[in-house]
Amino acid sequence: MAGKRALKVYLDLLSQPCRAVYIFLKCNKIPHTVELVALRKGEHRTPQFTKLNPMQKVPVMDDNDFVLTESDAILKYLATNYNVPEYWYPRQPERRARVDEYTAWHHTNTRPHAAKVFIFEVLMPQMTGQPTDPAKLKKALAELEETLEKLETMFLKRQPFLCGDDVTLADLLAICELMQPLASGRDVLRDRPKLVSWRSRVQSALRDPFDDAHAIVYRLRDKFAAKL
Amino acid sequence: MAGKRALKVYLDLLSQPCRAVYIFLKCNKIPHTVELVALRKGEHRTPQFTKLNPMQKVPVMDDNDFVLTESDAILKYLATNYNVPEYWYPRQPERRARVDEYTAWHHTNTRPHAAKVFIFEVLMPQMTGQPTDPAKLKKALAELEETLEKLETMFLKRQPFLCGDDVTLADLLAICELMQPLASGRDVLRDRPKLVSWRSRVQSALRDPFDDAHAIVYRLRDKFAAKL
Repeated sequence: MAGKRALKVYLDLLSQPCRAVYIFLKCNKIPHTVELVALRKGEHRTPQFTKLNPMQKVPVMDDNDFVLTESDAILKYLATNYNVPEYWYPRQPERRARVDEYTAWHHTNTRPHAAKVFIFEVLMPQMTGQPTDPAKLKKALAELEETLEKLETMFLKRQPFLCGDDVTLADLLAICELMQPLASGRDVLRDRPKLVSWRSRVQSALRDPFDDAHAIVYRLRDKFAAKL
Repeated sequence: MAGKRALKVYLDLLSQPCRAVYIFLKCNKIPHTVELVALRKGEHRTPQFTKLNPMQKVPVMDDNDFVLTESDAILKYLATNYNVPEYWYPRQPERRARVDEYTAWHHTNTRPHAAKVFIFEVLMPQMTGQPTDPAKLKKALAELEETLEKLETMFLKRQPFLCGDDVTLADLLAICELMQPLASGRDVLRDRPKLVSWRSRVQSALRDPFDDAHAIVYRLRDKFAAKL
């Protein structure tokens, strides 16, 4: 086919999986255009966006008219089909299987448990004007602690990153979720030195794109602190 | 390395993801041994099993001392490293991405929604001796309907299988979940001709191993009917 390859992503950087896709593209200098989809304005529910993704969710990737949803699948597709360092998604079978193992686990652990804390502490109070329900928050925090415990004692037991000696898509997906509760000033890793060190290593590996992507979370944190 | 390759899987066939792994091994005639782990007897919580998988979950795969959890990751590992037809997990980037897209979606849709109906209708009454809570069951059924609607109108919109013209790991994982509520006699696909046809196609593709794996579900269904 003639013409330039056109890669477009539809994102809202307040969405954790969108930040993971954004950071991956920036870290690897993959040429792309970003179409912002403001979730708070309901832009994911417009007829135009629904035609693109009937699930009405972000992120969405459009690579020369190949439209793909699910951050997990998008990241694996990009890591496989663009020229990026192999450590992100190793080809060696056992190492690749470790990344697939974490990402499968992620969907029902790190993602929902960290997201719930953010939803109860930031999103719900903002949408309803009501204060956080302490019982719901307590339960969400307890669930998150269980997940953090597993991240520390199982995934990080004997290695610096979730799936081995190098940063992978697993760390990228995980860090974006675990940063989200910071929007209310809550650092969920604070009392876990092993996870704090891991975060520093991931942050170093992701360089400037990490802070660029999380600027919106830092802004929310500062706004939240100013209100107290 | 000298010696034979030794593949072992730890399974309970009442677990949906375990059945998917079992069917895959049988369909592809991959030599393996099965270690049964009876969940109802708590065999997944013994010190020995916990050492193998600290998450205390099945399935677990042990391929020459490479121990892997998460059915999604196990199936992708087996499809990549054993001599099986390519349609299960296509190498072509867009087709592979479609399987990764479905499996990511599966974890927070098909799996929890079908499982909940089984839990409320079969597992909980059996464990507590109390009848099913109608309100909880109603909510679970409504959530499952939403997922079935998406399977029909999005994934199966223009194709015979979830990810294209051939059966893939996506169909295998999905069918094992959607068969589970049959344990109480509930055929969740009954009123959806498109999904009923899809089930027939998947069942044909999976041949005898499909019924072997589901024998335990059929037995529960018959026991349930006899009690009525």
